[in-house]
Amino acid sequence: MPNEKHSAPRDDRRRLKLIVAYDGAPFRGWQSQAGGETIQDRVETAFEKILGEKIRVHGAGRTDAGVHALGQCAHADVPLTKLAPIDWRNALNASLPAQIRIVRANFVSQHFHARFSARGKVYRYRIVRGDVMPPLEVGRAWHVIEPLSDDLIRSAAKVFCGTHDFARFSANRGSAPESTVRTIRSARVRTAKSWLVIEFDGDGFLYKMVRMMVGAIVRCASGKESTESLRERLRTPAPGSRFVAPACGLTLVRVRY
Amino acid sequence: MPNEKHSAPRDDRRRLKLIVAYDGAPFRGWQSQAGGETIQDRVETAFEKILGEKIRVHGAGRTDAGVHALGQCAHADVPLTKLAPIDWRNALNASLPAQIRIVRANFVSQHFHARFSARGKVYRYRIVRGDVMPPLEVGRAWHVIEPLSDDLIRSAAKVFCGTHDFARFSANRGSAPESTVRTIRSARVRTAKSWLVIEFDGDGFLYKMVRMMVGAIVRCASGKESTESLRERLRTPAPGSRFVAPACGLTLVRVRY
Repeated sequence: MPNEKHSAPRDDRRRLKLIVAYDGAPFRGWQSQAGGETIQDRVETAFEKILGEKIRVHGAGRTDAGVHALGQCAHADVPLTKLAPIDWRNALNASLPAQIRIVRANFVSQHFHARFSARGKVYRYRIVRGDVMPPLEVGRAWHVIEPLSDDLIRSAAKVFCGTHDFARFSANRGSAPESTVRTIRSARVRTAKSWLVIEFDGDGFLYKMVRMMVGAIVRCASGKESTESLRERLRTPAPGSRFVAPACGLTLVRVRY
Repeated sequence: MPNEKHSAPRDDRRRLKLIVAYDGAPFRGWQSQAGGETIQDRVETAFEKILGEKIRVHGAGRTDAGVHALGQCAHADVPLTKLAPIDWRNALNASLPAQIRIVRANFVSQHFHARFSARGKVYRYRIVRGDVMPPLEVGRAWHVIEPLSDDLIRSAAKVFCGTHDFARFSANRGSAPESTVRTIRSARVRTAKSWLVIEFDGDGFLYKMVRMMVGAIVRCASGKESTESLRERLRTPAPGSRFVAPACGLTLVRVRY
């Protein structure tokens, strides 16, 4: 891949920024794959239908198969046409399946890059509790039957706040090594009788990091691990048992720039 | 069909009352049909798997293809076994697809009948407003793009409250004629920027009645019909233009006994 970060601005193109929402259930994640059926593939196909040419769509980051988005961000360099941003939004939506929607579109400077300009992201994880999983929550939340202590959820979530090496709370994607230090600005917990939501705001997230944090929080909240042991595990990065919460409970809420 | 209402109690059976929740999207409605793929068919199949015999499941009422339920009610006469109600719930759920869940089960008197003992029902209709339909709302709400006045929604909804002949707000199901007089106890409207919900509590609802009321309310709220004209239409039952809101926005919330 050429160095996208420093590609020269082009006079015959304008950079279009897109806010993309999707139901992750029917797709194999954001990132383009041989075999298609990813959200990026679908958005690129929609551009191709409109333009008659292939263009590349750059997302702020990957989301796994089954992960949803309210505000994924992406950009693409489109030819100079008479289409206003709202026309782009409508034209793309007309070519996309209902499970993928362009929520907003606007023209931005070619110095803006969906991935490299991102300063942080907000992810939300939804858990449904109780004996019976409500049918309308299937594919949209993790169903946890065992009782979870609200207090322990809050104290376990707090463990992750701040700057830590999250090596132990990420999966290897097989790509080049990079720093595994990240900063979680906040982990906001909202609870009700039948559900709970944890919202993480951080400067960046490693592969499967949110789902591993949620897996660990739920283990603490059900009494299988102490908050102290969790804090210790975070302090001493090393391979260890990992509990990955299912993808369906996760939503990329927004990308901060 | 034999006269179900007055069938004699049987000593070798117990009557099991079920509260059933379902995502209506993948099914052809509640009521058993040649060709199957209805919720009633699925629940009867689950009983057959457990008992090795076919038994009839009686619902409180039909819901159309695509209509959801949080609290449909049904009953079935099961053989005397050692299964407690919670065992019945769990055994049925183990045989049902995730889109159908038995929320609660309990034994009731054989004088209880899911349909004939019902004193009323609560239906909820959800509308999503705005230019773009959120992907996670697809199949769970009606997307209305044109602006709707909250005040007009409230005043139009109020038109239906009370006792009226709803002939003009129901579709012919091809069955024997019956009274088309029904009482709506309340039509509660909740609105927000991006959605609105109308909840009808009534002693009974005719075929497609909620969806026709919602269709009329939305016509009023978008300025296509005056509340006065709606009131007049309700007063003079006669054939007329009918606007049926889509099934996907409708949920049977509970049956009152």
